[in-house]
Amino acid sequence: MKNSLAKWALLPITLLTANFANAQSTHYTPATELTLVGKIEPTQQVYHRVDTVAYPAMPQAVKRLLTNSAGLAIAFKTNSSTVSVKWCTSSSKPLVNMTAIAYEGLDLYIKKNGRWQFAGVGRPNGDCTEYTLVRNMDGSEKECLLYLPLYDEIKSLEIGVEDGATIEALPDPFQRRILLYGSSILQGASASRPGMAYPARLSRETGLNLLNMGLSGSAKMEKAVADMIAAVPVDAFVLDCVPNSSPQEIRERTAYLVNTIREHHPKAPILVIPSTVRENGAFDQEVGQRVQAQNKQIEEEVAKLLRSGVKNLYLLSYDQQLGADHEGTIDGSHPNDLGFDRMLKQLKPQILAILKKHRLLAD
Amino acid sequence: MKNSLAKWALLPITLLTANFANAQSTHYTPATELTLVGKIEPTQQVYHRVDTVAYPAMPQAVKRLLTNSAGLAIAFKTNSSTVSVKWCTSSSKPLVNMTAIAYEGLDLYIKKNGRWQFAGVGRPNGDCTEYTLVRNMDGSEKECLLYLPLYDEIKSLEIGVEDGATIEALPDPFQRRILLYGSSILQGASASRPGMAYPARLSRETGLNLLNMGLSGSAKMEKAVADMIAAVPVDAFVLDCVPNSSPQEIRERTAYLVNTIREHHPKAPILVIPSTVRENGAFDQEVGQRVQAQNKQIEEEVAKLLRSGVKNLYLLSYDQQLGADHEGTIDGSHPNDLGFDRMLKQLKPQILAILKKHRLLAD
Repeated sequence: MKNSLAKWALLPITLLTANFANAQSTHYTPATELTLVGKIEPTQQVYHRVDTVAYPAMPQAVKRLLTNSAGLAIAFKTNSSTVSVKWCTSSSKPLVNMTAIAYEGLDLYIKKNGRWQFAGVGRPNGDCTEYTLVRNMDGSEKECLLYLPLYDEIKSLEIGVEDGATIEALPDPFQRRILLYGSSILQGASASRPGMAYPARLSRETGLNLLNMGLSGSAKMEKAVADMIAAVPVDAFVLDCVPNSSPQEIRERTAYLVNTIREHHPKAPILVIPSTVRENGAFDQEVGQRVQAQNKQIEEEVAKLLRSGVKNLYLLSYDQQLGADHEGTIDGSHPNDLGFDRMLKQLKPQILAILKKHRLLAD
Repeated sequence: MKNSLAKWALLPITLLTANFANAQSTHYTPATELTLVGKIEPTQQVYHRVDTVAYPAMPQAVKRLLTNSAGLAIAFKTNSSTVSVKWCTSSSKPLVNMTAIAYEGLDLYIKKNGRWQFAGVGRPNGDCTEYTLVRNMDGSEKECLLYLPLYDEIKSLEIGVEDGATIEALPDPFQRRILLYGSSILQGASASRPGMAYPARLSRETGLNLLNMGLSGSAKMEKAVADMIAAVPVDAFVLDCVPNSSPQEIRERTAYLVNTIREHHPKAPILVIPSTVRENGAFDQEVGQRVQAQNKQIEEEVAKLLRSGVKNLYLLSYDQQLGADHEGTIDGSHPNDLGFDRMLKQLKPQILAILKKHRLLAD
């Protein structure tokens, strides 16, 4: 009798389980239970880059851009044969010079033979999407890194694995903390997908934790922004804000930014990147002259700061720009993946040499 | 009295002219009065690639894709300091793995020091847009090449120059006719802008007229399509249709396509490109196996055709694929501009060697 009852009692549970395994074979975990990589500082809304309520004087455009999840990624490990994601973003729509995958989609890398390798993208479909980024994998445990949208705000994010598979937080795979402050180019326009933004590529290739404070069109070194940046606890700074700043702004604001950083960080190296050539300046004489004026001005400001005694301040050189064939941009201003590759080939050795000199990276 | 009248009569004309020069300083010319480059055959709707009504047996998807303007460009010369365009496309919306500029926008090149150089893009804004692609140019006469959208249908197109500037048709700058038949990768997914599609790049670099019959997802060598392709009057064929065809379709259809081309073109070289590695096949075991099976099958079919006596048939080799860093795609399947660059670095020398051997290109 007891046995019979037990059998009956088990039957619906078995059926239920079978049904669940078929129709709902994916088990979702809130990404907040995993490891959030690339955070500049703790925030109330976890996928914002900075808690902008703490900085009321910052320009509205900067505050809005700091809600974009550029540079953030989720690190986890799983033995699932599939990786799925449910995510919601804001209602903003992709810019015409970006793919929707880069703007509001996801990008998954998996460790293979000791290096991070592209595994699949999350293709957005409206503001909320459920998508399987990779399937049919072998059942070995894998280290995963899921890059979040470059230009949109994440409202919710859950990562799905097969029922019965494990998923757990992976310790942050990146070392040190290096803050990059700059323009749309830094934020990721116009990489084809989130993991192709240049700080993300450089992080994977060096193992360094590069914090993306790319502020599309709004990296203008305002005082309130400089104060915020300078207070972030990091080991080094990269300033890539020349493209957004007029020659006058560069003249008036560079010293305050650099000196304020130096007050908070007596020894941290500060690396300054000149503006890329604007390919549309090849024929548009005004654009061409503006970039020349910006780069001349930043050279002067850095030289003045060095003369005034600021140490560990470096202006990177960037002569070959985005390639002699002039094919390195999507729109004359923003590098495509080919332009970013050429940009990194020039900048990476300079950045690594400085970081090694300061013992932030092993030889 | 006569003089006074003349003065009065001139006044409103002068005012009108001044007003026109300010508010309507751009003069538009229908693109149909200029040179249309890259046409596969004459069509009733000039921006379609093929007049599909003439081929009722072709699959519906192929017919729809042949209305996309991939590979078409407008050649003209002007001494205007600006180039503007008014254009309308269909209501279709960009795919998530493409930028709107590539999908439904425009891409302008200008001859500089003997080579085509990127000058500016047409950023789409809805289905109909008026946009100035470049401004502030010096007043010298320039040769211009305006690439049309890769994935949309052009409904109307007018090119605008400053009032008083000249604009006229430029003779087609490209030599010979080489038809490329293939998948979305050939059609241009996922180049960042129309001029970065690989046939467009190869045309500019070689001076050859490469006709783009990229048919996204639908390059499956159906009999009706093979019959249409084989009848096009060209000097050489490039077949890049392996990615869309199953191993079975490759086994069943390759011979018919090649033999039918050979009937119409007894000596034209036929170059076959294997499928690119699918980067999402690195972890997805099924995808990886499918590409291997496709490439094994095309090797067998080409070998069989060569044994059967078909001459001037070449299978290109493509071993390094899109780069050892696996960063050459937007989504695992479609090259980004970096992947296209790596693809061309491998394929271009092989293609040029064959075309030189057949005297279609000077040594």
